[in-house]
Amino acid sequence: MSNKRKIVESVPNYSEGTNGKVVEAIVDEIRQTPKTRIVDIQYDSDYNRAVITFVGEPEAVLQANIAASKKALELIDMTKHKGQHPRIGATDVVPFIPAQNVTMEECDALAKRYAEAMVDLGVPIYLYEESATKPERKNIDNIRVGDYEGLRKTIETNPDHKPDFGPAKFHPKGGATVTGARMALVCLNINLGTTNVKVAKRVARRVHLASGGLVNIKAMGTAIEGKDYVQVGISNVNYKKTPMYRQLELVRIEAARYGVSVVGTELVGPIPLESALNSLEYYLQLVNPKHLKEENLIEHYFDF
Amino acid sequence: MSNKRKIVESVPNYSEGTNGKVVEAIVDEIRQTPKTRIVDIQYDSDYNRAVITFVGEPEAVLQANIAASKKALELIDMTKHKGQHPRIGATDVVPFIPAQNVTMEECDALAKRYAEAMVDLGVPIYLYEESATKPERKNIDNIRVGDYEGLRKTIETNPDHKPDFGPAKFHPKGGATVTGARMALVCLNINLGTTNVKVAKRVARRVHLASGGLVNIKAMGTAIEGKDYVQVGISNVNYKKTPMYRQLELVRIEAARYGVSVVGTELVGPIPLESALNSLEYYLQLVNPKHLKEENLIEHYFDF
Repeated sequence: MSNKRKIVESVPNYSEGTNGKVVEAIVDEIRQTPKTRIVDIQYDSDYNRAVITFVGEPEAVLQANIAASKKALELIDMTKHKGQHPRIGATDVVPFIPAQNVTMEECDALAKRYAEAMVDLGVPIYLYEESATKPERKNIDNIRVGDYEGLRKTIETNPDHKPDFGPAKFHPKGGATVTGARMALVCLNINLGTTNVKVAKRVARRVHLASGGLVNIKAMGTAIEGKDYVQVGISNVNYKKTPMYRQLELVRIEAARYGVSVVGTELVGPIPLESALNSLEYYLQLVNPKHLKEENLIEHYFDF
Repeated sequence: MSNKRKIVESVPNYSEGTNGKVVEAIVDEIRQTPKTRIVDIQYDSDYNRAVITFVGEPEAVLQANIAASKKALELIDMTKHKGQHPRIGATDVVPFIPAQNVTMEECDALAKRYAEAMVDLGVPIYLYEESATKPERKNIDNIRVGDYEGLRKTIETNPDHKPDFGPAKFHPKGGATVTGARMALVCLNINLGTTNVKVAKRVARRVHLASGGLVNIKAMGTAIEGKDYVQVGISNVNYKKTPMYRQLELVRIEAARYGVSVVGTELVGPIPLESALNSLEYYLQLVNPKHLKEENLIEHYFDF
């Protein structure tokens, strides 16, 4: 319904996962911004990284991100940062995600306004996903090649590493930040009833977009210490075109070659309602899915 | 989240499905009540009956139902009513259904306040489902035995037919009304790939609560004219205890005995979000369904 309020989701990543006080100080900037709400907070010291999921009105999400990134720039010193996860900046990545009654274009405009605010503080900005200015910058992995340490060497000399916003001048304490508009990610871990990690790796390869699998799907096979199963971890970058059921049923088919069954699954983070409904539609074999559309559920008539 | 607004659903049934002007005049009473929203309007002249689905704040749903029932009492004359569907009154049944942040007890209190308002107009009231005063009145079919015509004869003489509210005195023009608190119904039609209606009837019997099937499930097998399938129509009176997937998978198993497959399904009306999520949880084999709970979906963080 077009009279529903406009809601944007954001999942900023900060390069701090060890000092809880620093993370809390950054999160507080979001928490104190009216018309936003925090959905999920995760940080760990191996990655030395914090991932915050929040929603809010578009302008509020923009202002909360600017305030939180300013705080990160103040409290995080990238010249001293160590961690396993790829990263280039104190605020590493800030996506703007359409959640309700908002277009991708509106999110793209928010990302660019965020970029301008950060450039005023001297932080170089790269645009990714739907905001990318070149095909190779769509995927954040290509932007983060070489990490903070590599960027320091090449940003001022290699034209391929020229930022999209701001001068090609390195900011030692803050590094650089990636921002852009993108769809919500849907991440599902699928457990296979074997302790042989080779099965998970082979199944993952066959499901992954880069090796003959499903478009929009990235998959990785891993052993899980102390468990009697192995795991295929899946990231889905477009749940509208490639619903969850398709990846799960394809994993089931590929694992059957080894006589191995799916023994369970885990959603890794919050998901959009639509990504639940478009899979249930398949499993129920609905011929007219009208009543399974978001706007026709009883709960969605509440804007009166 | 307990700070969410309180929302009640109601699905009043009126004994008029032929004269659209009368139906619209009744519906207008609901439409003009602030803090309500109409979800669905259905009426047909075979049944000569109108079924309106709407949601709203508890007090608003009560007032809308009182206003609409007054209008029905004014415009419908039961002494002249003919129709195929069982019915005892101009306003035949008025359920109060918890939809969000409302308890069954609150809905029961609304039903009783509705009853008192109708009694003031001389309409006898029977309580059903969660509001029933005797086990045999839980099921509306037992209250409506004999229809309007039968009630006329027995209400004043048979103590078993004594109303729960109001005197045991017949109201010729308005008949009597059934009200009470109940859970939302979930109705799914399951299509079987055969034109042999016996298969649908046999499968329906095995799934139905009264003949060895699933509790909370009523099922009926029917032929569908002009189609290459038959249908098992299912009403589920408790989707929390008996989720949709269980009835669908049991129908699949019973139909397999005849070598017949499920070729499609249809939801008959609006369903609660929870009834979608608790079935998807099964099909995805989620071991930790936290992220599939209503309150953890991205869309449900919007009360800021």
